[in-house]
Amino acid sequence: MELAGIIDHTNLQPDAAENDIRQLCAEARQRRFASVCVNPCNVRLAAKELEGSGVKVCSVCGFPLGANASETKVFEAEKAFKDGASEIDMVINVGKLKDGNDEYVLNEIKAVTEAVPQAVVKVIIETCLLTREEKIRACRLVKQAGAAYAKTSTGFSKSGATAEDVRLMRETLGEDFGIKAAGGIRSRSFAEELVRAGADRIGASKSVEICEG
Amino acid sequence: MELAGIIDHTNLQPDAAENDIRQLCAEARQRRFASVCVNPCNVRLAAKELEGSGVKVCSVCGFPLGANASETKVFEAEKAFKDGASEIDMVINVGKLKDGNDEYVLNEIKAVTEAVPQAVVKVIIETCLLTREEKIRACRLVKQAGAAYAKTSTGFSKSGATAEDVRLMRETLGEDFGIKAAGGIRSRSFAEELVRAGADRIGASKSVEICEG
Repeated sequence: MELAGIIDHTNLQPDAAENDIRQLCAEARQRRFASVCVNPCNVRLAAKELEGSGVKVCSVCGFPLGANASETKVFEAEKAFKDGASEIDMVINVGKLKDGNDEYVLNEIKAVTEAVPQAVVKVIIETCLLTREEKIRACRLVKQAGAAYAKTSTGFSKSGATAEDVRLMRETLGEDFGIKAAGGIRSRSFAEELVRAGADRIGASKSVEICEG
Repeated sequence: MELAGIIDHTNLQPDAAENDIRQLCAEARQRRFASVCVNPCNVRLAAKELEGSGVKVCSVCGFPLGANASETKVFEAEKAFKDGASEIDMVINVGKLKDGNDEYVLNEIKAVTEAVPQAVVKVIIETCLLTREEKIRACRLVKQAGAAYAKTSTGFSKSGATAEDVRLMRETLGEDFGIKAAGGIRSRSFAEELVRAGADRIGASKSVEICEG
């Protein structure tokens, strides 16, 4: 299975230094990963490093807790887009979903997607914090809001992607919607399992190992 | 040792529901904690719940990774202040500190403190990711930037506050500067140890247990 072209090569560590980001970009350029996924403060550097490579820059928004004000998420998405990110992985407000405040969750995702209409917006639902019913409800809101992808996990919570969650998301979202699996994906065999379950994008920091594994 | 008056009673869980925040506020009101510390999306609710109580609302900024754009941190601090937070716990950019980019770290803290001059700004240096030299450098930058407190930890990284770190911070910052210890403080005895080491504010979610312990 060809994986490189669907991998977001990721370094979201808070202590990542400039050289770590440069190395991430060099690896992405060499392996032709879909994108590098970096924190907002590193978007400009990554965009410069990847100029002319065809590799996109992906950044995060409201990450990893998703409990920011909606206005701040909009501001952060716009800033990342201006700095050179063409993909934005935002985190939903999990607490509001648990409160049954679907309108809040929907309006927030809409506000971000409408603020950066030229960007691909992926919406992290943080499956490990959700019940089965909440996962389904979250996926429906992501689709209704007009985002491009639903994404399983931040990789900073209790656990990451599972094939079972990806299958449920694919079932809920239908065939023509993006699903990104992320969090704890460290081997080729697990990445392939997630793709077979329905993922069409993989987020990983161990991407080189995954491709060689 | 009287602790309640120096405790920031904290719930920063991404899945905190409205009732969790209401309960946090009721406990803070009853015990006369210094503040409640909540995510930005909960500031308005907390401010309403605590009206007239004398308990402050504290919120977070660039939390917990600190790797947002500086402009986003400024926006988030201003928004939290407008929503009713009078204390703002911001996270430094750890990667830039590791790069030796002290000017970036300094300017970012300055930008936030100057954006909310009426708020008490506490600056989280995330000690568990830093060497001894970096902890000292971070404290000096926090003081130079004009913030009110240096704070040990987010509680969302590898580990939290230690008495040793608090002692080093007190040594570096001198007597007339605020130090908040947070992360992993679950017992009265540990909270008291941190105060003896030099902390004058404690961040905890187990505040009721700490006071009763």
